[in-house]
Amino acid sequence: MTNNKSELDFYPTRVDSESKILPRTDPVIYSDSVSPLSKEQTSFFEENGYLIFESLFSLEEVKKLFEELAAISLDESKKTMPQFILEETEKDVRSIFEIHKISNMFDMLCQDKRISDVARQLLGSDIYIHQSRVNLKPGFDGKEFYWHSDFETWHSEDGMPNMRAISCSIGLTQNYEFNGPLMVIPGSHKKFVSCSGKTPSDHYKQSLKRQEIGTPDKQILERMALDGNIVSAKGDPGTVIFFDCNIMHGSNGNITPYPRSNAFFVFNSVHNQLVEPFCGLKPRPDYIASRDFTPIGSVDNFLTNSD
Amino acid sequence: MTNNKSELDFYPTRVDSESKILPRTDPVIYSDSVSPLSKEQTSFFEENGYLIFESLFSLEEVKKLFEELAAISLDESKKTMPQFILEETEKDVRSIFEIHKISNMFDMLCQDKRISDVARQLLGSDIYIHQSRVNLKPGFDGKEFYWHSDFETWHSEDGMPNMRAISCSIGLTQNYEFNGPLMVIPGSHKKFVSCSGKTPSDHYKQSLKRQEIGTPDKQILERMALDGNIVSAKGDPGTVIFFDCNIMHGSNGNITPYPRSNAFFVFNSVHNQLVEPFCGLKPRPDYIASRDFTPIGSVDNFLTNSD
Repeated sequence: MTNNKSELDFYPTRVDSESKILPRTDPVIYSDSVSPLSKEQTSFFEENGYLIFESLFSLEEVKKLFEELAAISLDESKKTMPQFILEETEKDVRSIFEIHKISNMFDMLCQDKRISDVARQLLGSDIYIHQSRVNLKPGFDGKEFYWHSDFETWHSEDGMPNMRAISCSIGLTQNYEFNGPLMVIPGSHKKFVSCSGKTPSDHYKQSLKRQEIGTPDKQILERMALDGNIVSAKGDPGTVIFFDCNIMHGSNGNITPYPRSNAFFVFNSVHNQLVEPFCGLKPRPDYIASRDFTPIGSVDNFLTNSD
Repeated sequence: MTNNKSELDFYPTRVDSESKILPRTDPVIYSDSVSPLSKEQTSFFEENGYLIFESLFSLEEVKKLFEELAAISLDESKKTMPQFILEETEKDVRSIFEIHKISNMFDMLCQDKRISDVARQLLGSDIYIHQSRVNLKPGFDGKEFYWHSDFETWHSEDGMPNMRAISCSIGLTQNYEFNGPLMVIPGSHKKFVSCSGKTPSDHYKQSLKRQEIGTPDKQILERMALDGNIVSAKGDPGTVIFFDCNIMHGSNGNITPYPRSNAFFVFNSVHNQLVEPFCGLKPRPDYIASRDFTPIGSVDNFLTNSD
């Protein structure tokens, strides 16, 4: 069931003609610690696969991040870097990968203990950055992003063995209900949806704009999202959502005038380092799936530390 | 400024290379009546250009409508009728026009006094159906509909002289915040946005799927929707939104599994009958812009009367 010779594949995917549901054999929470998250909060995360913290960062802090980001985005010469993913129109920037290597401020941000300590607690170990990026969803014609589990891709295309990674999204703009906010399906992280199809070579070049392989069948989504079981991550700038690597999520397009920007960090446990991709192809580039497993530190405040 | 020889054109549009804002010379409310809407409700409508009534129709009533609609939609032979507008994919039905002529139940529905009396009050006269349709926005890949004022099109392409028409949308499915609900910009009905471009012949064949001519510039939308000034029409099936013919509205796409269906009636005052289209082209077909100006009646309950 796998082309990976050195590791058992507990989550085979893209090997059949239709998608199906497999059990999750990994835990969701990897420690008994009750700090910084309370028992109630870790229980909520275990059950639902996400946690939202309204205004975890202040408007002033977000303003600094946004200024940094605006300066980077204005640099036309950077748009040719592979880290810069453009919209299908080729005009607007959709995402900037490896933002923590491009910007010292964002490097400090991912180590800010308000987020990194949460990831260490949930994953029960030291952590490193598997992926970082900033997403810029423009107003008026921001494109949708179809339902998917990140882990399904990271496992298949990056060789991430187990579900022991946490995503953290920090809103840099107001997330309204109508400007294409992140939507998650609570509880969907507790099953693995093995997807149909076969990964094409260099799939990431296309899938970062519009994912078609590695998405679940409609019937499975209907069952997971029964009776309105969808949560939108809304909130003021500075609001943070943590979500399990395997939760089903996506976002609608955005015709409103309001752009939607967020900073996105994937914390992976140092005990869950990448192996060869399970789909049998060559690994994706480092700026999408890092193979530098050096643990990150913890800083009290990203602004103080990036001065 | 107009190709229409017999009527003054107070709302020239599609004549310049850029869009601009013109004053609305027509009133919003055409009567002093305080029934069925209260003074408070008509004042709200005058100021904001819309009114939402949660569950104006019961779930049982909506069920009957939906059954009727499902039966009509299942009839493959009907899909070749011009009244049936398909999605760009050509597979799914996006809209069915003239639904009140296709179905007796929907004919009674538009006359149901819970909606028709509201339109008579706001327009201060007898009314007729300028357009009726049912919209079926499928789950998973429902397309967005960009910002526009209906009146801009009705004036330009249908020859509707004045702003004296009311739209009424009845939700047939649950309208969540995330399945592409109607969005309106409160207060935008008080100005006329003269749009850029020139109407192509038979524009409706394309514009019913994706409107590109007759849409305002981004700068104008940004100003109108400043600071989150957008309202989504959410609610249980049976929820009704009335909105002014000139309010700026649109809807996002829909990747959720939940389809979104609504019945849509445009009540026009009998004193606002269509003349030649102001864009100078031949009128759109009757099933899109009726030239049968016979006033509709008022029935107590559409179900009782369609038995």
